[in-house]
Amino acid sequence: MVHADASNFAPELTKEEAYEQVHDQAEGLFYEQRNWVCNLANTSSLLWHAYKSLPSPSNQVNWAGFYTLSPIPTKKTNQPQLILGPFQGKVACQMIAFGRGVCGTAASTKTTQLVGDVNAFPGHIACDGASRSEIVVPIVVDDKVVAIIDIDCAVTDGFDNVDKLWLEKLADLVAKSCDWP
Amino acid sequence: MVHADASNFAPELTKEEAYEQVHDQAEGLFYEQRNWVCNLANTSSLLWHAYKSLPSPSNQVNWAGFYTLSPIPTKKTNQPQLILGPFQGKVACQMIAFGRGVCGTAASTKTTQLVGDVNAFPGHIACDGASRSEIVVPIVVDDKVVAIIDIDCAVTDGFDNVDKLWLEKLADLVAKSCDWP
Repeated sequence: MVHADASNFAPELTKEEAYEQVHDQAEGLFYEQRNWVCNLANTSSLLWHAYKSLPSPSNQVNWAGFYTLSPIPTKKTNQPQLILGPFQGKVACQMIAFGRGVCGTAASTKTTQLVGDVNAFPGHIACDGASRSEIVVPIVVDDKVVAIIDIDCAVTDGFDNVDKLWLEKLADLVAKSCDWP
Repeated sequence: MVHADASNFAPELTKEEAYEQVHDQAEGLFYEQRNWVCNLANTSSLLWHAYKSLPSPSNQVNWAGFYTLSPIPTKKTNQPQLILGPFQGKVACQMIAFGRGVCGTAASTKTTQLVGDVNAFPGHIACDGASRSEIVVPIVVDDKVVAIIDIDCAVTDGFDNVDKLWLEKLADLVAKSCDWP
Protein backbone atom coordinates (compact mmCIF):
# COMPACT_ATOMS: atom_id res chain seq x y z
CA MET A 1 0.00 0.00 0.00
CA VAL A 2 1.28 3.51 -0.79
CA HIS A 3 1.49 5.82 2.19
CA ALA A 4 -1.27 8.20 1.06
CA ASP A 5 -3.87 5.43 1.33
CA ALA A 6 -3.56 5.67 5.12
CA SER A 7 -5.37 9.02 4.80
CA ASN A 8 -8.37 7.48 3.03
CA PHE A 9 -11.30 6.94 5.39
CA ALA A 10 -14.43 5.12 4.22
CA PRO A 11 -17.38 7.57 4.25
CA GLU A 12 -19.64 5.33 6.36
CA LEU A 13 -17.29 5.04 9.37
CA THR A 14 -18.49 6.14 12.80
CA LYS A 15 -16.32 8.63 14.70
CA GLU A 16 -15.08 5.79 16.92
CA GLU A 17 -14.12 3.73 13.86
CA ALA A 18 -12.36 6.67 12.21
CA TYR A 19 -10.34 7.32 15.38
CA GLU A 20 -9.53 3.62 15.59
CA GLN A 21 -8.16 3.77 12.02
CA VAL A 22 -6.10 6.87 12.92
CA HIS A 23 -4.67 5.04 15.92
CA ASP A 24 -3.90 1.85 14.02
CA GLN A 25 -2.35 3.65 11.04
CA ALA A 26 -0.27 5.82 13.36
CA GLU A 27 0.97 2.74 15.17
CA GLY A 28 2.03 1.24 11.84
CA LEU A 29 3.75 4.42 10.68
CA PHE A 30 5.65 4.69 13.99
CA TYR A 31 7.12 1.20 13.58
CA GLU A 32 10.92 1.64 13.52
CA GLN A 33 10.41 5.42 13.19
CA ARG A 34 10.86 7.54 16.33
CA ASN A 35 11.53 10.95 14.73
CA TRP A 36 9.01 13.28 16.34
CA VAL A 37 8.70 15.76 13.45
CA CYS A 38 8.06 13.00 10.92
CA ASN A 39 5.59 11.22 13.19
CA LEU A 40 3.64 14.35 14.18
CA ALA A 41 3.45 15.44 10.52
CA ASN A 42 1.89 12.14 9.44
CA THR A 43 -0.41 12.04 12.50
CA SER A 44 -1.73 15.53 11.67
CA SER A 45 -2.57 14.27 8.20
CA LEU A 46 -4.35 11.19 9.55
CA LEU A 47 -6.46 13.28 11.95
CA TRP A 48 -7.32 15.91 9.32
CA HIS A 49 -8.52 13.36 6.77
CA ALA A 50 -10.43 11.40 9.42
CA TYR A 51 -12.40 14.50 10.44
CA LYS A 52 -13.09 15.45 6.81
CA SER A 53 -14.62 11.98 6.22
CA LEU A 54 -17.15 12.33 9.05
CA PRO A 55 -20.51 14.14 9.25
CA SER A 56 -20.88 17.53 10.98
CA PRO A 57 -19.61 18.79 13.35
CA SER A 58 -16.40 16.73 12.85
CA ASN A 59 -16.04 17.71 9.18
CA GLN A 60 -16.07 21.34 10.30
CA VAL A 61 -12.64 20.87 11.91
CA ASN A 62 -10.48 23.71 10.55
CA TRP A 63 -7.10 22.99 12.21
CA ALA A 64 -5.48 19.78 13.40
CA GLY A 65 -1.93 19.59 14.67
CA PHE A 66 0.62 19.89 17.39
CA TYR A 67 2.51 22.32 19.54
CA THR A 68 5.65 21.08 21.29
CA LEU A 69 7.62 22.23 24.32
CA SER A 70 9.83 25.07 23.08
CA PRO A 71 13.56 24.69 23.72
CA ILE A 72 13.49 28.42 24.56
CA PRO A 73 11.44 29.72 27.56
CA THR A 74 9.56 33.03 27.45
CA LYS A 75 11.82 36.08 27.28
CA LYS A 76 10.22 38.16 30.00
CA THR A 77 9.43 35.62 32.69
CA ASN A 78 11.58 32.60 31.74
CA GLN A 79 8.47 30.39 31.85
CA PRO A 80 8.01 27.31 29.63
CA GLN A 81 6.18 27.88 26.36
CA LEU A 82 4.82 25.90 23.42
CA ILE A 83 6.03 26.27 19.85
CA LEU A 84 4.12 25.42 16.68
CA GLY A 85 4.74 21.93 15.32
CA PRO A 86 3.43 20.07 12.26
CA PHE A 87 -0.26 20.68 11.45
CA GLN A 88 -2.90 20.77 8.72
CA GLY A 89 -4.97 23.92 8.26
CA LYS A 90 -4.35 27.64 8.05
CA VAL A 91 -1.27 29.49 9.35
CA ALA A 92 -1.14 29.44 13.16
CA CYS A 93 0.28 31.29 16.17
CA GLN A 94 3.92 30.36 16.70
CA MET A 95 4.49 30.65 20.45
CA ILE A 96 2.04 30.06 23.33
CA ALA A 97 3.09 30.52 26.96
CA PHE A 98 2.09 27.80 29.44
CA GLY A 99 -1.13 28.93 31.10
CA ARG A 100 -2.29 31.12 28.18
CA GLY A 101 -5.48 30.23 26.33
CA VAL A 102 -6.79 26.71 25.75
CA CYS A 103 -3.43 25.25 24.61
CA GLY A 104 -1.43 26.88 27.39
CA THR A 105 -3.95 25.72 30.00
CA ALA A 106 -3.78 22.11 28.79
CA ALA A 107 0.02 22.33 29.00
CA SER A 108 0.20 23.94 32.45
CA THR A 109 -2.51 21.73 34.02
CA LYS A 110 -1.59 18.52 32.13
CA THR A 111 -5.30 17.93 31.56
CA THR A 112 -7.43 17.78 28.42
CA GLN A 113 -9.34 20.98 27.67
CA LEU A 114 -12.70 20.33 25.96
CA VAL A 115 -14.09 23.76 25.10
CA GLY A 116 -17.55 24.03 23.49
CA ASP A 117 -17.29 27.78 22.92
CA VAL A 118 -13.80 29.25 22.71
CA ASN A 119 -15.11 32.81 23.00
CA ALA A 120 -16.25 31.99 26.54
CA PHE A 121 -12.80 30.66 27.52
CA PRO A 122 -10.77 33.16 29.60
CA GLY A 123 -7.71 34.37 27.68
CA HIS A 124 -8.56 32.46 24.47
CA ILE A 125 -5.96 33.13 21.74
CA ALA A 126 -7.70 33.63 18.39
CA CYS A 127 -5.20 32.31 15.82
CA ASP A 128 -8.21 31.98 13.51
CA GLY A 129 -11.37 33.99 14.10
CA ALA A 130 -13.34 31.21 12.38
CA SER A 131 -12.63 28.70 15.19
CA ARG A 132 -15.59 28.24 17.56
CA SER A 133 -14.71 25.16 19.64
CA GLU A 134 -11.49 23.37 20.52
CA ILE A 135 -10.05 20.30 22.18
CA VAL A 136 -6.47 20.21 23.46
CA VAL A 137 -4.85 17.07 24.85
CA PRO A 138 -1.46 17.08 26.59
CA ILE A 139 1.24 14.60 25.55
CA VAL A 140 3.09 13.68 28.72
CA VAL A 141 6.38 11.78 29.15
CA ASP A 142 7.79 11.13 32.64
CA ASP A 143 5.26 13.57 34.13
CA LYS A 144 6.48 16.35 31.79
CA VAL A 145 4.41 17.89 28.96
CA VAL A 146 6.43 17.42 25.75
CA ALA A 147 3.68 18.46 23.33
CA ILE A 148 -0.07 18.95 22.91
CA ILE A 149 -2.60 17.81 20.31
CA ASP A 150 -4.73 20.79 19.27
CA ILE A 151 -7.92 20.47 17.19
CA ASP A 152 -10.12 23.45 16.27
CA CYS A 153 -13.64 23.37 14.86
CA ALA A 154 -15.55 26.09 12.99
CA VAL A 155 -18.77 25.39 14.90
CA THR A 156 -19.51 25.41 18.64
CA ASP A 157 -19.60 22.08 20.51
CA GLY A 158 -17.49 20.37 17.83
CA PHE A 159 -16.09 17.80 20.25
CA ASP A 160 -17.38 15.39 22.90
CA ASN A 161 -16.13 12.65 25.19
CA VAL A 162 -15.53 10.30 22.24
CA ASP A 163 -12.98 12.79 20.89
CA LYS A 164 -11.48 13.15 24.38
CA LEU A 165 -11.16 9.39 24.88
CA TRP A 166 -9.55 8.69 21.49
CA LEU A 167 -7.28 11.73 21.41
CA GLU A 168 -6.00 10.83 24.89
CA LYS A 169 -5.34 7.29 23.62
CA LEU A 170 -3.52 8.78 20.62
CA ALA A 171 -1.53 11.10 22.90
CA ASP A 172 -0.35 8.06 24.89
CA LEU A 173 0.73 6.32 21.69
CA VAL A 174 2.56 9.40 20.37
CA ALA A 175 4.22 9.99 23.76
CA LYS A 176 5.86 6.57 23.86
CA SER A 177 6.57 6.33 20.10
CA CYS A 178 8.81 9.37 19.62
CA ASP A 179 12.23 10.53 20.79
CA TRP A 180 11.48 14.03 22.14
CA PRO A 181 14.01 16.86 21.85
CA MET B 1 -4.41 40.48 11.95
CA VAL B 2 -4.87 36.93 13.24
CA HIS B 3 -2.37 34.42 11.90
CA ALA B 4 -4.88 32.41 9.85
CA ASP B 5 -5.55 35.42 7.59
CA ALA B 6 -2.08 34.90 6.09
CA SER B 7 -3.54 31.77 4.42
CA ASN B 8 -6.31 33.71 2.70
CA PHE B 9 -5.52 34.41 -0.95
CA ALA B 10 -7.80 36.60 -3.06
CA PRO B 11 -9.37 34.49 -5.84
CA GLU B 12 -8.30 36.81 -8.66
CA LEU B 13 -4.54 36.66 -7.96
CA THR B 14 -2.18 35.48 -10.69
CA LYS B 15 0.24 32.68 -9.81
CA GLU B 16 3.07 35.21 -9.56
CA GLU B 17 1.02 37.36 -7.17
CA ALA B 18 0.06 34.35 -5.04
CA TYR B 19 3.72 33.30 -4.75
CA GLU B 20 4.65 36.88 -3.90
CA GLN B 21 2.11 36.82 -1.06
CA VAL B 22 3.51 33.48 0.16
CA HIS B 23 7.02 34.96 0.14
CA ASP B 24 6.02 38.17 1.92
CA GLN B 25 3.90 36.40 4.54
CA ALA B 26 6.67 33.88 5.17
CA GLU B 27 9.18 36.69 5.63
CA GLY B 28 6.86 38.29 8.19
CA LEU B 29 6.30 35.02 10.05
CA PHE B 30 10.06 34.34 10.17
CA TYR B 31 10.73 37.69 11.89
CA GLU B 32 12.38 36.86 15.23
CA GLN B 33 11.45 33.18 14.71
CA ARG B 34 14.21 30.84 13.49
CA ASN B 35 12.76 27.48 14.62
CA TRP B 36 12.78 25.33 11.49
CA VAL B 37 9.83 23.09 12.43
CA CYS B 38 7.59 26.05 13.21
CA ASN B 39 8.66 27.92 10.08
CA LEU B 40 8.31 24.97 7.70
CA ALA B 41 4.88 24.13 9.17
CA ASN B 42 3.56 27.64 8.50
CA THR B 43 5.22 27.78 5.06
CA SER B 44 3.53 24.49 4.05
CA SER B 45 0.21 26.06 5.00
CA LEU B 46 0.90 29.22 2.98
CA LEU B 47 1.84 27.21 -0.12
CA TRP B 48 -1.15 24.86 0.17
CA HIS B 49 -3.68 27.66 0.46
CA ALA B 50 -2.01 29.65 -2.34
CA TYR B 51 -2.33 26.71 -4.74
CA LYS B 52 -5.95 26.07 -3.72
CA SER B 53 -6.82 29.70 -4.57
CA LEU B 54 -5.50 29.43 -8.15
CA PRO B 55 -7.05 27.97 -11.32
CA SER B 56 -6.04 24.53 -12.67
CA PRO B 57 -3.48 23.00 -12.74
CA SER B 58 -2.25 24.77 -9.54
CA ASN B 59 -5.44 23.98 -7.57
CA GLN B 60 -4.82 20.29 -8.34
CA VAL B 61 -1.79 20.31 -6.03
CA ASN B 62 -2.30 17.36 -3.67
CA TRP B 63 0.79 17.61 -1.43
CA ALA B 64 2.91 20.56 -0.32
CA GLY B 65 5.67 20.31 2.22
CA PHE B 66 9.21 19.57 3.20
CA TYR B 67 11.72 16.82 3.72
CA THR B 68 14.82 17.63 5.76
CA LEU B 69 18.27 16.08 6.03
CA SER B 70 17.90 13.12 8.37
CA PRO B 71 20.20 13.08 11.40
CA ILE B 72 20.53 9.33 10.71
CA PRO B 73 22.10 8.06 7.43
CA THR B 74 20.80 4.98 5.62
CA LYS B 75 21.36 1.74 7.51
CA LYS B 76 22.84 -0.36 4.71
CA THR B 77 25.11 2.10 2.90
CA ASN B 78 25.57 4.92 5.43
CA GLN B 79 24.47 7.44 2.77
CA PRO B 80 22.62 10.68 3.59
CA GLN B 81 18.84 10.52 3.45
CA LEU B 82 15.83 12.80 3.74
CA ILE B 83 13.20 12.52 6.44
CA LEU B 84 9.60 13.75 6.28
CA GLY B 85 9.04 17.25 7.67
CA PRO B 86 5.93 19.43 8.05
CA PHE B 87 3.46 19.26 5.14
CA GLN B 88 -0.15 19.61 4.05
CA GLY B 89 -1.83 16.72 2.25
CA LYS B 90 -2.11 12.98 2.66
CA VAL B 91 0.25 10.74 4.66
CA ALA B 92 3.67 10.54 3.01
CA CYS B 93 6.79 8.36 2.77
CA GLN B 94 9.00 8.87 5.78
CA MET B 95 12.56 8.31 4.52
CA ILE B 96 14.04 8.96 1.06
CA ALA B 97 17.69 8.17 0.28
CA PHE B 98 19.70 10.83 -1.59
CA GLY B 99 19.57 9.92 -5.28
CA ARG B 100 16.24 8.06 -5.08
CA GLY B 101 13.26 9.39 -7.02
CA VAL B 102 12.50 13.05 -7.65
CA CYS B 103 13.18 14.22 -4.07
CA GLY B 104 16.38 12.22 -3.70
CA THR B 105 17.66 13.47 -7.07
CA ALA B 106 17.04 17.12 -6.11
CA ALA B 107 18.94 16.49 -2.87
CA SER B 108 21.90 14.66 -4.43
CA THR B 109 22.29 17.04 -7.40
CA LYS B 110 21.38 20.25 -5.52
CA THR B 111 19.23 21.25 -8.48
CA THR B 112 15.49 21.81 -8.90
CA GLN B 113 13.62 18.87 -10.43
CA LEU B 114 10.65 19.98 -12.57
CA VAL B 115 8.89 16.78 -13.61
CA GLY B 116 5.89 16.97 -15.95
CA ASP B 117 5.10 13.25 -15.69
CA VAL B 118 6.36 11.45 -12.60
CA ASN B 119 5.64 8.04 -14.11
CA ALA B 120 8.33 8.75 -16.72
CA PHE B 121 10.92 9.65 -14.05
CA PRO B 122 13.41 6.82 -13.38
CA GLY B 123 12.97 5.43 -9.85
CA HIS B 124 9.96 7.60 -8.99
CA ILE B 125 8.68 6.85 -5.48
CA ALA B 126 4.87 6.74 -5.47
CA CYS B 127 3.88 7.95 -1.98
CA ASP B 128 0.50 8.75 -3.55
CA GLY B 129 -0.62 7.03 -6.74
CA ALA B 130 -2.75 10.10 -7.51
CA SER B 131 0.30 12.33 -8.06
CA ARG B 132 1.10 12.95 -11.74
CA SER B 133 3.64 15.80 -11.73
CA GLU B 134 6.08 17.19 -9.17
CA ILE B 135 8.52 19.98 -8.47
CA VAL B 136 11.29 19.61 -5.90
CA VAL B 137 13.58 22.48 -4.91
CA PRO B 138 16.66 22.00 -2.73
CA ILE B 139 17.24 24.25 0.29
CA VAL B 140 20.99 24.78 0.51
CA VAL B 141 23.06 26.30 3.33
CA ASP B 142 26.85 26.59 3.00
CA ASP B 143 26.75 24.32 -0.07
CA LYS B 144 24.95 21.58 1.93
CA VAL B 145 21.36 20.44 1.30
CA VAL B 146 19.50 20.91 4.61
CA ALA B 147 16.00 20.30 3.23
CA ILE B 148 13.85 20.25 0.09
CA ILE B 149 10.52 21.80 -0.87
CA ASP B 150 8.32 19.12 -2.45
CA ILE B 151 5.06 19.90 -4.29
CA ASP B 152 2.94 17.22 -6.00
CA CYS B 153 0.09 17.76 -8.44
CA ALA B 154 -2.71 15.36 -9.43
CA VAL B 155 -2.42 16.28 -13.14
CA THR B 156 0.55 16.11 -15.51
CA ASP B 157 2.50 19.31 -16.24
CA GLY B 158 1.28 20.94 -13.04
CA PHE B 159 4.31 23.21 -12.75
CA ASP B 160 6.31 25.56 -14.98
CA ASN B 161 9.20 28.01 -14.77
CA VAL B 162 7.11 30.47 -12.72
CA ASP B 163 6.82 27.82 -9.99
CA LYS B 164 10.55 27.08 -10.31
CA LEU B 165 11.51 30.75 -10.03
CA TRP B 166 9.34 31.50 -6.99
CA LEU B 167 9.98 28.24 -5.13
CA GLU B 168 13.74 28.78 -5.56
CA LYS B 169 13.28 32.31 -4.16
CA LEU B 170 11.31 30.83 -1.26
CA ALA B 171 14.00 28.17 -0.70
CA ASP B 172 16.61 30.94 -0.39
CA LEU B 173 14.45 32.77 2.17
CA VAL B 174 13.81 29.60 4.18
CA ALA B 175 17.50 28.62 4.04
CA LYS B 176 18.67 31.84 5.66
CA SER B 177 15.73 32.24 8.05
CA CYS B 178 15.99 29.03 10.05
CA ASP B 179 18.47 27.44 12.45
CA TRP B 180 18.97 23.97 10.95
CA PRO B 181 19.58 20.93 13.13
